Amino acid sequence: MFTGLSAFPLTPLANDAVDEPSFIRIMERLAASGTDSITALGSTGSYTYLTGAERAKVAHLAVEHAGGTPVFIGVGALRTSHVLANVREAERAGASAVLLAPVTYQALTADDVFELYRAVSENTDLPVIVYDNPGTTHFTFTHELYGRIAGLPGIASIKIPGVPTDPVKAEEHIQAIRAVVPGHVTIGVSGDAFAATGLNAGCDAWYSVIGGTLPRLALGISHLAQGGRTDEATAESERIAPLWNLFNEFGGSLRVIAAIAEHLGLAQHRSLPLPIQGLNKNQRARVAEVVNELGLGD
Amino acid sequence: MFTGLSAFPLTPLANDAVDEPSFIRIMERLAASGTDSITALGSTGSYTYLTGAERAKVAHLAVEHAGGTPVFIGVGALRTSHVLANVREAERAGASAVLLAPVTYQALTADDVFELYRAVSENTDLPVIVYDNPGTTHFTFTHELYGRIAGLPGIASIKIPGVPTDPVKAEEHIQAIRAVVPGHVTIGVSGDAFAATGLNAGCDAWYSVIGGTLPRLALGISHLAQGGRTDEATAESERIAPLWNLFNEFGGSLRVIAAIAEHLGLAQHRSLPLPIQGLNKNQRARVAEVVNELGLGD
Repeated sequence: MFTGLSAFPLTPLANDAVDEPSFIRIMERLAASGTDSITALGSTGSYTYLTGAERAKVAHLAVEHAGGTPVFIGVGALRTSHVLANVREAERAGASAVLLAPVTYQALTADDVFELYRAVSENTDLPVIVYDNPGTTHFTFTHELYGRIAGLPGIASIKIPGVPTDPVKAEEHIQAIRAVVPGHVTIGVSGDAFAATGLNAGCDAWYSVIGGTLPRLALGISHLAQGGRTDEATAESERIAPLWNLFNEFGGSLRVIAAIAEHLGLAQHRSLPLPIQGLNKNQRARVAEVVNELGLGD
Repeated sequence: MFTGLSAFPLTPLANDAVDEPSFIRIMERLAASGTDSITALGSTGSYTYLTGAERAKVAHLAVEHAGGTPVFIGVGALRTSHVLANVREAERAGASAVLLAPVTYQALTADDVFELYRAVSENTDLPVIVYDNPGTTHFTFTHELYGRIAGLPGIASIKIPGVPTDPVKAEEHIQAIRAVVPGHVTIGVSGDAFAATGLNAGCDAWYSVIGGTLPRLALGISHLAQGGRTDEATAESERIAPLWNLFNEFGGSLRVIAAIAEHLGLAQHRSLPLPIQGLNKNQRARVAEVVNELGLGD
């Protein structure tokens, strides 16, 4: 279940509340796309910005409208007891797994993070995906810590940040992680610009921002890479370099992907939680240009 | 009101709930100490780890047990609407001001942060203290942004992180900030090891972690520096270097100050919110040693 494409939908807001009709439409579109799994309430799903009640509602809507596609739910929070409450709601919603990042305000030690994963693994029968996202958590996993955590019962997968751009180094990087985790734990790449390289280097899965809003595009790359057509996967990823460039230029993927969803009518204008303003008018025009040039409008 | 020592109390937990009797005792001790103000629900007060209801309760308890000492309340949160709800509760509690950091999960732009402060300043008559704490928020203020925000109505003070250790450079640093903010906006130093240097260099206030748990010690340094006895202030800060060394060695001030509070009987064992484990047995023994050697047990 923790292989192939996992698509990360946005959780669009409207007037500072979850825009449930838009979220349902996004989920139904993903369910129809053939994605291998859907991860709701990831970073792309603005999980840390939502209340516990909003997160519970989104988790339930996600499973109800996934048409049988496995749904993973992000459960991270600053306080362990809040994480466990989110896990409970994910179970109630019928999620297939939970995704857990070590969210920080005060910097955490390796032992703090290990004990967080232990508390979750001891308190649920759901598989747990380790979410290594240093850009937002500012926590750095070592391979040693991957190994300690992956040895806990219930750990199913590790979502790693980007891989080295050099294919040989990327392969070495994945092999170094495999060497410290049990064989049943899959490794999934994130940082969409690295996905083709990561999949070609042997990653089992792609935890994908663009998969949640542009599933056809992401599935194309995923199928090429996992079908062994590595050069074509690389070429397709290079073809959409203008999109990756916007991610870099506009401070990450979230603001850009939200602007794309708004441009495609999948979310209302200004769908991100304040204080995140989202892109300005000129930036949105640039995004629309790239969407049209690359034919991303599914 | 935004000068002198502002003491930052811990919000001790017990069994994953706010330990209200301990918090009340800490507040009453601070009220009796003669500190110029008290800032509850700062980083030292674990504000981001608490629910809205817990924060409201702590804000009310803080003002009720401050014996007339001005109380500032930390209102930061990831989502602007949650910040505004915290501001509303601070007003209801009778706070004298609010302290606001740009808490992040997704990195924020300067415009995002400016609009956050604008939203707050437009929605309250309480003075606002700008909380620049890059170690926890991972947001970097420029002097230009200080200037833009300080020009908003209601901005009363800026809590800056440490200053350069060289006294001349520290003075230049403070003057450079003064040059971009209106004259009524005070500048307060934080990063306790820098306090004597910062106050000697002309900071109006010290926003102090140790002030919340060791008020006698902090008031000593504050009175020396603000009374013009700069060499004695520096000497007193240097005398307690073993404490600053523990802050560095044990990953910041919070775990150490919580261990000190627990050692002094001001909080129960393991008073920090999980997943923060706090110090281990050997580390606590080192802390106790330093407390005894330096005579910090008030």
